[in-house]
Amino acid sequence: MARDEADVIVVGAGLSGLIAARTLLDAGLTPLLVEADERVGGRILTEEVLPGLPVELGAQWIGDTHHRMFALAAELGVETYPQYDSGETSYDLVGSGTLREREFHEQFADELADLEKVLRRLDELAAEVPVEAPWLAPKAAEWDILTAADWYDRQGLSPVARTLLEICTVGILAVPTVEVSFLHLLFTIQTCGVTSELFAESEGGAQTTRFVGGTAEIPKRLAALVADQIVLNSPVQLIEHTADNVTVHCRGGLVARGRRVIVAISPTLAGRIMYDPPLSGVRDQLTQRLPNGSAMKAFFVYDEPFWRADGLNGQLISDVGPARMSNDTCIPGDDHGVILLFLEGEQARTYGRLPQEDRRAALTAELVRHFGSRATDPEFYIDGEWSERQWTRGCYNANHGPHVWTTYGHALSAPIGAIHWASTDTATFWSAYMEGAVEAGERAAHAVIDELR
Amino acid sequence: MARDEADVIVVGAGLSGLIAARTLLDAGLTPLLVEADERVGGRILTEEVLPGLPVELGAQWIGDTHHRMFALAAELGVETYPQYDSGETSYDLVGSGTLREREFHEQFADELADLEKVLRRLDELAAEVPVEAPWLAPKAAEWDILTAADWYDRQGLSPVARTLLEICTVGILAVPTVEVSFLHLLFTIQTCGVTSELFAESEGGAQTTRFVGGTAEIPKRLAALVADQIVLNSPVQLIEHTADNVTVHCRGGLVARGRRVIVAISPTLAGRIMYDPPLSGVRDQLTQRLPNGSAMKAFFVYDEPFWRADGLNGQLISDVGPARMSNDTCIPGDDHGVILLFLEGEQARTYGRLPQEDRRAALTAELVRHFGSRATDPEFYIDGEWSERQWTRGCYNANHGPHVWTTYGHALSAPIGAIHWASTDTATFWSAYMEGAVEAGERAAHAVIDELR
Repeated sequence: MARDEADVIVVGAGLSGLIAARTLLDAGLTPLLVEADERVGGRILTEEVLPGLPVELGAQWIGDTHHRMFALAAELGVETYPQYDSGETSYDLVGSGTLREREFHEQFADELADLEKVLRRLDELAAEVPVEAPWLAPKAAEWDILTAADWYDRQGLSPVARTLLEICTVGILAVPTVEVSFLHLLFTIQTCGVTSELFAESEGGAQTTRFVGGTAEIPKRLAALVADQIVLNSPVQLIEHTADNVTVHCRGGLVARGRRVIVAISPTLAGRIMYDPPLSGVRDQLTQRLPNGSAMKAFFVYDEPFWRADGLNGQLISDVGPARMSNDTCIPGDDHGVILLFLEGEQARTYGRLPQEDRRAALTAELVRHFGSRATDPEFYIDGEWSERQWTRGCYNANHGPHVWTTYGHALSAPIGAIHWASTDTATFWSAYMEGAVEAGERAAHAVIDELR
Repeated sequence: MARDEADVIVVGAGLSGLIAARTLLDAGLTPLLVEADERVGGRILTEEVLPGLPVELGAQWIGDTHHRMFALAAELGVETYPQYDSGETSYDLVGSGTLREREFHEQFADELADLEKVLRRLDELAAEVPVEAPWLAPKAAEWDILTAADWYDRQGLSPVARTLLEICTVGILAVPTVEVSFLHLLFTIQTCGVTSELFAESEGGAQTTRFVGGTAEIPKRLAALVADQIVLNSPVQLIEHTADNVTVHCRGGLVARGRRVIVAISPTLAGRIMYDPPLSGVRDQLTQRLPNGSAMKAFFVYDEPFWRADGLNGQLISDVGPARMSNDTCIPGDDHGVILLFLEGEQARTYGRLPQEDRRAALTAELVRHFGSRATDPEFYIDGEWSERQWTRGCYNANHGPHVWTTYGHALSAPIGAIHWASTDTATFWSAYMEGAVEAGERAAHAVIDELR
């Protein structure tokens, strides 16, 4: 049995754990980062599908308000570039047939104006949710016994507007709105600022900027800074803890001892670790109630971005076919045309279980309907579904159903003796995004530094 | 490291696992039963609080249609006796103040007639749900995007009737109705026959009969039949499996090898075990979405059952105070008066977290309001909350939120290679009850016997 000692054991070498380890190291403490997988990065996963052409099976974008991520990229020397955003989106909603953005906005001007009012109302309500403690919102009890779907259904929206709202929301939560509480939706909006940040189809928002070389450059370069402190292929099975000591037991035999542990994995995975002494019933029932979402990304690589010449931006929004949304994800300086299709919630579940060739065929048909017959023959195709990955088990994040925030929420990030919690799921600013992973990793590391100083 | 070999490893020595082990042994196969806890019985837990006076912190009753349980008790020589059921229930709903059963029924006759119609409608709809595959119900998709609360709220019931319906339902599910899908409610009803079986306040139903000496006599005597095949204090951490072999690794060093494994613990606990090779994303996301309920039982022991002389049956149904329901749980041949108070769903969560003395004081006040000042000074008090128990983590069973049955349900009991699943949560007849535990244990054992024969 290998044995190792450090000041702080960090469980999980995703972005949050890497940031925690780096922050501890900068403060003069010795971290030991134990990772179940054979790689670092967690929900960040870049694959180079053709020479010089990375695609992002995981986290891909940052947005203008993601200050920690911009600073981190600058520090690590990772350059950024703006997301391509010229041309029109292609719509097909509630039997409309494919419509270009301008046509769609003309045809459904009244419906979209109604939707805009609902988004403004969401912003008003979200502003009443304290992100550090959503259960203290004045109407927390009322909002937490509603599902987001319940509230949406009561807004009197037309089928087109209601469908568009569902698609935009599922694009963030990766589960249908009936599976989350309305309070959780408001919390999510508030951690990001306003709905226009979150749902933005064009300027601003969460998806403005990408990383040269691929998002994985971030965890790769971070890992290089703490390289001597990382052990891969070491799934944690047991954490023994006292007020001031932890012993972390991994499959494969590693036993790591430290004064604190930061568990930087999603709550549902954190709940699978055995703790001795056992954690409280509140903490345990919390992690039973925070399932990860269902998300899948599929990439089609063509010889060129042919849709651009047609005045299209490579985006579709549709309730027909396996993907509800798409994006142009070409790489500057590379001639290939790359389209990313999102399968989220029910689509990830239904189509994710088909043989890849069937899924690809269904997605191809959808692309052809929106972008024409040149979509038929890509040079390359790749997809990735996150629930199949043993050390992630779903994306993008943990979702709170009715009663979870108000009944169990206080146990989400509160330390338990020597055990601290990180991962983007515990963040209060852009929770579920890379920005949140950094915030949560820094918060946990600083709490530990304060305790050990 | 201890090593052990058997034909079949059974994980969990609750009722379902014990039945599976016994069934395998009877068929000439060698089981090895590995149990995390220091005792057998799982969600059955009898404590002798005074000499000759056992109380049931876990499963307590069987009902008239629980044929497997009656046969099992007879075989094991455990005698049964009927639940005391003379006198009136005491009600206090929606500000009514305490009312005796007859007054309550007179005052709310119309409301109760409306409720009766809703129950008949539930029976009709439940009859359309195939218990082996609820996702194949003709309206499964429609019912599984509603919560049970959504459907209840649409029935136009008066506040008193709606509150009574909530209380009766939470008394079964141990979570508020907004946390389960309507399809799951219908499934639950259908596995029990009809609502009158499930919700029955008096004759028939799920709570007619108790066991002499306590429910724990059942697992105790079953365990004696397979005593040489049980290992306690051995939480399973890892199951390695091929098509025809399993290796089960436990904390403490036990490594058990067999040809099959039957995992007879609740789905959320089964999801914490590491599997190699890993299970599918469908199975994993299923177990992320099956939280155990929140339930707590509290017992007051008096020198005599003083409420009986007042014409009361020891039952209360109330929306005031920490307990929504109670029961007379005296033991024949013992003079003490014993009242059991149920804290379920939100009550278990809220009051379960208070110091015991505060919880006891609140419960005492409730008893005094319903049964008079003699309730003030019990000889003995005991309570038990299930989420705090490390190897159970909530009662009574796994609850399915929206989309769980239709999207993941087929993975609940389907074997995966050499891995089979038991526990009452996987049953199709009285799921969540002891009867279901026996059914599921027998089903899994017979499937294994068929494969190995």
